[in-house]
Amino acid sequence: MNPPIPGPSFFIGKGDDSLISFGSGQPDLPPPEEAFAILASHRGFKYGPVAGSVALRSELAKQYADAGPDDFVITNGASEAIDLALRAIAPPVGGPGGKVALPRPYYYSYPHNVRLAGMEPVYYDLEEGKINLETFKKAATGSIAVFINSPSNPTGTVQDVETLKAVEQFCAREGIYILSDEVYKDLIYVRENYLLHGPHVVTINSFSKTYAMCGLRVGYLFSKDAELVKAVVEMKTHTAMNTSILAQDMALAALLSPRSYVTSYVDVWKERRDRMYTGMRALGLELWEPEGAFYVLPTFKHSGRVVSDLYYTYRMITYDGAWFGAPDRVRFSYALDVTKIDEGLRRLKDFLENEYKNY
Amino acid sequence: MNPPIPGPSFFIGKGDDSLISFGSGQPDLPPPEEAFAILASHRGFKYGPVAGSVALRSELAKQYADAGPDDFVITNGASEAIDLALRAIAPPVGGPGGKVALPRPYYYSYPHNVRLAGMEPVYYDLEEGKINLETFKKAATGSIAVFINSPSNPTGTVQDVETLKAVEQFCAREGIYILSDEVYKDLIYVRENYLLHGPHVVTINSFSKTYAMCGLRVGYLFSKDAELVKAVVEMKTHTAMNTSILAQDMALAALLSPRSYVTSYVDVWKERRDRMYTGMRALGLELWEPEGAFYVLPTFKHSGRVVSDLYYTYRMITYDGAWFGAPDRVRFSYALDVTKIDEGLRRLKDFLENEYKNY
Repeated sequence: MNPPIPGPSFFIGKGDDSLISFGSGQPDLPPPEEAFAILASHRGFKYGPVAGSVALRSELAKQYADAGPDDFVITNGASEAIDLALRAIAPPVGGPGGKVALPRPYYYSYPHNVRLAGMEPVYYDLEEGKINLETFKKAATGSIAVFINSPSNPTGTVQDVETLKAVEQFCAREGIYILSDEVYKDLIYVRENYLLHGPHVVTINSFSKTYAMCGLRVGYLFSKDAELVKAVVEMKTHTAMNTSILAQDMALAALLSPRSYVTSYVDVWKERRDRMYTGMRALGLELWEPEGAFYVLPTFKHSGRVVSDLYYTYRMITYDGAWFGAPDRVRFSYALDVTKIDEGLRRLKDFLENEYKNY
Repeated sequence: MNPPIPGPSFFIGKGDDSLISFGSGQPDLPPPEEAFAILASHRGFKYGPVAGSVALRSELAKQYADAGPDDFVITNGASEAIDLALRAIAPPVGGPGGKVALPRPYYYSYPHNVRLAGMEPVYYDLEEGKINLETFKKAATGSIAVFINSPSNPTGTVQDVETLKAVEQFCAREGIYILSDEVYKDLIYVRENYLLHGPHVVTINSFSKTYAMCGLRVGYLFSKDAELVKAVVEMKTHTAMNTSILAQDMALAALLSPRSYVTSYVDVWKERRDRMYTGMRALGLELWEPEGAFYVLPTFKHSGRVVSDLYYTYRMITYDGAWFGAPDRVRFSYALDVTKIDEGLRRLKDFLENEYKNY
């Protein structure tokens, strides 16, 4: 009996060539060379503005309609943006706790982030990866904030634009914050990204997926809620100060690199998506066809045991669906070369034909 | 009437050659060239372990007695180390809040950090910058944690080793966490640093001051309390992930650079300290002679007005003592060239002989 895997942090940063990693959600292809090109002559070492470099925020503002540099805070990845936004909207300590509505399946950090900010998660269950508006409204009513995550990690689904507009209207009317995690905005196979907007929308974004800069840690939040942005900057003054100036300058160089970097990668992702989806279907697995991001979430019985056996016996990293609120599924990230995807599918076939059939 | 200055974040990241900045506490001299030398060939972009690079933690462990790499977490500056440590020891949300005892004057973020973690600051007033053990014990009793900050920002004082040992013993006996902020450990003019230790000591440290890497944001915490370290890593998985891999690699290169980098800088700081202390005494100001770090905290009436007038009329940045719990004082950082110190003292003389005498 292989030992159970405690959670994602067991795997993060693990590297070994014998392993096929369908685990951590990080691109394997490098950032644009322009991002590295700034390093050789970089000699900066002083504090920068806590909200982030003015040059970077100004460049970002060009990507958003009706946006200025003061609507952005550059953070240590999307994670810090989420942490600070939640802490900024949380009710005062000692008072009644607030509720935050999360989609389920959810990105594994969300419930932790909500609790770490002193609030309680409530859930709206997705149906085949899609928002059911009635279920959503029920969970959102009385909540301080809702999370929207389209394209979604871990489901790989993208929400309909009509649904997202209905979410916007409902939350604006009810005065509910929307934390819209759009870190996969540039990895959509079915349509252009739809940017959620409204008076209390906080857009969470990152350079990690679009520019393959996961380890460098540059994310940001964008909001037209000036009071919230101010509260986040004030908080970050005490909790972290500026995001590393060097990583920010790399992010700026990436942003200024030719757009073809991003568009050409989408074709690479599409090929992988097809290989993965077709391959898994051929193995008889049940899963949703990915519309964005780079995850599939096939159903498995005993998902924890699957993840442990695949790791210890087949040298494959996968993430237990239970970590994402989907205990009858296993998440596979396909952010790796097609030859590795093929090898992974071979190992998976072995597993299905041997261990798994005896579960 | 010049407008009041709202707080330190107003000044952070402000640069202008006409300004003499006695404000932000950051070295003006660059990091060791070894730290920059790694950049040209750096091509890393993937996530690293959330606790920080194993190489960096292993190298740090050599600097501490009885330490291993797993006793460290590399953070986005000392600020994040403080934030995470406090959140890790805070009582569960909804339960009775905990108290945390802070020295006063304090580093301006401490009370914010304590409140952001859902706890309440209580204070032990320093006497001429020194800990009075009876006052300390009174505040510490019933507290979850105490902060020790020697050398101190903003007082520039260093606590006696006997006092620090008494603090250790008292807190070990009472089961109180010690958060020992030792970011100025390599900038002491009067003796070697005394590393506080004990079963529930969390040492907060940083590459910002020792290696002039403020803007790059690499700090760390060190503790023999394995449960606390584990809780911090688990939390950081959700709130930020790894500290920027590039900044960590620069920190490692700095750590491996010749020790003469650090020792030769202490002489530079001593000269500046002497210039500042002597110059201010000659102007008739009342202040403590700095024993470490790079701050003086002379007394002033109407400190807020002083800071505003010095900024708007004399183009000098100084920090209001009120931000540090010392409303009758103004903090001057002397982390700048002696020619700038001299020019600053000239402007200060003008101010004292003109505006200030009419306050």
